[in-house]
Amino acid sequence: MDTDTISKPHERLADLLAGEMGAVNELIRTRMASEHAPRIPEVTAHLVEAGGKRLRPMLTLAAARMFDYPGDHHLRLAATVEFIHTATLLHDDVVDESDKRRGRPTANLLWDNKSSVLVGDYLFSRSFQLMVETGSLRVLDILANASATIAEGEVLQMTAATDLSTNEAIYLQVVRGKTAALFSAATEVGGVIAGASEDQVKALFDYGDALGVAFQIADDLLDYQGDSAATGKNVGDDFRERKLTLPVIKAVAQATPEEHAFWERAIGRGRQEDGDLDHALNLMAKYGTLAATRSDALGWAVRAKASLDVLPDHEIRTLLRDLADYVVSRLN
Amino acid sequence: MDTDTISKPHERLADLLAGEMGAVNELIRTRMASEHAPRIPEVTAHLVEAGGKRLRPMLTLAAARMFDYPGDHHLRLAATVEFIHTATLLHDDVVDESDKRRGRPTANLLWDNKSSVLVGDYLFSRSFQLMVETGSLRVLDILANASATIAEGEVLQMTAATDLSTNEAIYLQVVRGKTAALFSAATEVGGVIAGASEDQVKALFDYGDALGVAFQIADDLLDYQGDSAATGKNVGDDFRERKLTLPVIKAVAQATPEEHAFWERAIGRGRQEDGDLDHALNLMAKYGTLAATRSDALGWAVRAKASLDVLPDHEIRTLLRDLADYVVSRLN
Repeated sequence: MDTDTISKPHERLADLLAGEMGAVNELIRTRMASEHAPRIPEVTAHLVEAGGKRLRPMLTLAAARMFDYPGDHHLRLAATVEFIHTATLLHDDVVDESDKRRGRPTANLLWDNKSSVLVGDYLFSRSFQLMVETGSLRVLDILANASATIAEGEVLQMTAATDLSTNEAIYLQVVRGKTAALFSAATEVGGVIAGASEDQVKALFDYGDALGVAFQIADDLLDYQGDSAATGKNVGDDFRERKLTLPVIKAVAQATPEEHAFWERAIGRGRQEDGDLDHALNLMAKYGTLAATRSDALGWAVRAKASLDVLPDHEIRTLLRDLADYVVSRLN
Repeated sequence: MDTDTISKPHERLADLLAGEMGAVNELIRTRMASEHAPRIPEVTAHLVEAGGKRLRPMLTLAAARMFDYPGDHHLRLAATVEFIHTATLLHDDVVDESDKRRGRPTANLLWDNKSSVLVGDYLFSRSFQLMVETGSLRVLDILANASATIAEGEVLQMTAATDLSTNEAIYLQVVRGKTAALFSAATEVGGVIAGASEDQVKALFDYGDALGVAFQIADDLLDYQGDSAATGKNVGDDFRERKLTLPVIKAVAQATPEEHAFWERAIGRGRQEDGDLDHALNLMAKYGTLAATRSDALGWAVRAKASLDVLPDHEIRTLLRDLADYVVSRLN
């Protein structure tokens, strides 16, 4: 594939959807306001204006555009999806005790955990109001189910992350919760609101799901082999934070008793010593788990692209295909 | 009024609605389960089975019963309301750093803050699924708005509680958020799902709102004059936790400069010294703010009862009237 074609498809999507994204951003600004509690827009603005890629709301707009949706409910749904995303980031940072996100101090550091918990709740309730305004019970059902999958995945991650019996199936469930559920809901509701057929709605769901899984696996892989200047993360952050991700899960599955004891000490009990990260990387190299993880991510990207086949031949479809290549292109 | 008549009307309500409450409890048990994350039912059961009075779900059932609702969506809505309540309790205890609720250790103490934040999110998403199942957009709209009022009230409380410029209007807004919004949504959706007329739905909202305000003002008053054996709280907890509630707000409004400096030090800056609580109680006595607060609570109870007038003459209506008397009878 031509690397130029796959360079930054999300920027080309952003260009194509610029007018609508402007309207979504305006809606976000209006709805994050609170007449009575100024702390709310302060905290929200810190995150919302931190320059995220707005990938999730763009997926909703893109799906609706592909079916020439003439209304404006897709704007509400795009804002809904971004609010849900922002709410989960606020709660995640409290749960992970993070001090940095997107290179900036987190809200829980700048304000406090209370503000992050309560403003997250507020944004979730605002997203709920926005989706009710669309009047589509089908959309509400999709987003209610996605919310439950997200929350369940977060709880599961909390207990599974340091448990060495966590296998690839559980990992996939966590990934669906933390990433793929909102991606797939974002594409699905865009199609539903635009009146896409059942087959097409299913294809949009499948695309978002596979894209999200590919995206998260790539992210977890880059934690071990990324260029920290490019990713903004330090190599081995997940290891230090005792998060079992796919490259380690694959190594644990093949570990000798001695290696298993190492993983149990470093991840299970968190008693890390100097040189542990290097040893972990050696074990991953021994079993080729970084390469295997990369291959899994590429497989999910292929699946994402394949699900687009039943959708109309449209400029957006080409961009979504490129986007699937792009999320794993960082692994080359 | 006959004290016997007003004794424990919530218990008489519970008797009357026992069959339906059993079904609601079963629904709560089923829906709090999580196939993948056992931490969720553990944490939820700790709270849900702690023996709360289930006042909010009973209000929903009572409203539906008053209109002879023949369906079963009121059961889902009652469970919804209890899940929202439980989710807010979990988050409140994190925000307040509480270690006790209803005389038992809090979830954040037994497990950790993470579990409380994430399980709260999960319960909120489960409540959302339950309400979507009713298929009523009107109900979804009411509950979305109530959720936003609740979350906004919580944020407002966080910033307003130690700010001496907080006046009675702001206090009322906080009270609506922390208590009355869910009471009024509980009664309102019960009427809506049962097909009550607009006037009746409005009356149910007004009743729940006034009952919730009366309830919370009474709670805040009992913090200063209650019998700690009966309330399970120590006198002056709110003072020590620097929470501006109505009795103090009324005293601050009339304070001399010297008294204002005292409130500013003790509540505003939280530099409390021995004897401060006694001094605070003396100032409240000087301006009669406990009596004035009691009178406000009684006024809201009267308002609650008056709003019932347009509702059908029904055994439930009598019980709801008694309930309004009961929530303030603790103040006698």
